[in-house]
Amino acid sequence: MENAKGKVLLIPTFLGETPYQDVMPERVRTEITRLTFFAVENEKTARRYIKKVNPNAVIDQLTFFPIGKHSSEDDILHCIKPCMNGQDVGVISEAGVPAVADPGAAVVALAHANGVRVVPLCGPSSILMGLMASGLSGQNFAFNGYLPIGKPERRARLRELEAIASRGAAAQICIETPFRNLQMFSDVTDALSPRTMLCIACDITTADEYIRTKSIAEWKKAGVPDINKRPCIFIIQ
Amino acid sequence: MENAKGKVLLIPTFLGETPYQDVMPERVRTEITRLTFFAVENEKTARRYIKKVNPNAVIDQLTFFPIGKHSSEDDILHCIKPCMNGQDVGVISEAGVPAVADPGAAVVALAHANGVRVVPLCGPSSILMGLMASGLSGQNFAFNGYLPIGKPERRARLRELEAIASRGAAAQICIETPFRNLQMFSDVTDALSPRTMLCIACDITTADEYIRTKSIAEWKKAGVPDINKRPCIFIIQ
Repeated sequence: MENAKGKVLLIPTFLGETPYQDVMPERVRTEITRLTFFAVENEKTARRYIKKVNPNAVIDQLTFFPIGKHSSEDDILHCIKPCMNGQDVGVISEAGVPAVADPGAAVVALAHANGVRVVPLCGPSSILMGLMASGLSGQNFAFNGYLPIGKPERRARLRELEAIASRGAAAQICIETPFRNLQMFSDVTDALSPRTMLCIACDITTADEYIRTKSIAEWKKAGVPDINKRPCIFIIQ
Repeated sequence: MENAKGKVLLIPTFLGETPYQDVMPERVRTEITRLTFFAVENEKTARRYIKKVNPNAVIDQLTFFPIGKHSSEDDILHCIKPCMNGQDVGVISEAGVPAVADPGAAVVALAHANGVRVVPLCGPSSILMGLMASGLSGQNFAFNGYLPIGKPERRARLRELEAIASRGAAAQICIETPFRNLQMFSDVTDALSPRTMLCIACDITTADEYIRTKSIAEWKKAGVPDINKRPCIFIIQ
């Protein structure tokens, strides 16, 4: 019975300007070309992405279901309705892989609750690729999303993550809004121990990719890196 | 100056029997075809993988540096020596992406310490793809590796992870040796609250892919899933 239902396919997007063949398996293009229903965080960027991957796409013949932080359960249920009629639905988020720390997870959760199969496609993830390239991954790691914005709260949270990292040898991953990167760098280097390791992974998979791991002491000596307004991952251990 | 050095490239491998175009970007093949130095967890499986991706490879003309849990710093340093002479080195682990919870991370760490650029390539990761397809990723998640083997210790650790997950709405990811999956299932369903959500993601990216998220109560009702001796990721929240 379950096989008669459609599937939810999790479709990755680029992290920046990157040639298709560098980061995307051919299957991503095949699925994008075949699908007609998409649950998307942002319709405009999703349309542009689909057109880039498949220039022959007739965008007006596709159906887009917007999803966001404030989507109701009814909105989300609406996205997977085509699956109940045997049609597949693609989920596309703003950058990287969908359903990791973004509203796509709600679509996936509801798919499981309704016996709809979920198929993840392989593609670039800044969290995973930053972690790989950091050299800081032991047997454990944690992704902590955004830190508090206020300086005292942020520094306190950074020291808390440093303590967790050193207790469990677990790399602690954070992200920041690109225009706050320099503030983040200053908070990290001021608040943490000179011997703590910090990886900054910036513009991953693009021609400007910058990934460096140094101790806080070395970062202080090397000076402020050129990370202003560039998408970055910060990893401490 | 740094540009005169070679790079360390992190090269993903398959998670199981999967057609190349389903999960690998073309760039992985391009790099494998071009490189002559490889730091590998297991030379035999690395040779087989290279031959599969590039049937024209002349394996005897390639240099393999074995890396493992017990490699000394000198062994690891040996792997990145070609980089000092302007040559690139590929790192290949047993399954999925290298340098995440495996000995490749030591090569990466030493590359950074020696000013050698590290370039992560995109490919399949069971941790990331399991998390995507679980529907359990909120703003936070953690990978906890293997749990203790003894039953009381394992159940205690599972309850600890359940408490962390419910406090921080953070998905907790674990792995188990495939022949212990049924024991793991029994421990998880016995030790955790009926309302806790459990995702079992099995044989990811293969024809036998099985990914289901249910509450512990629902898993108990549904009975033991067919996961014996199949590579699995367990995620609770």
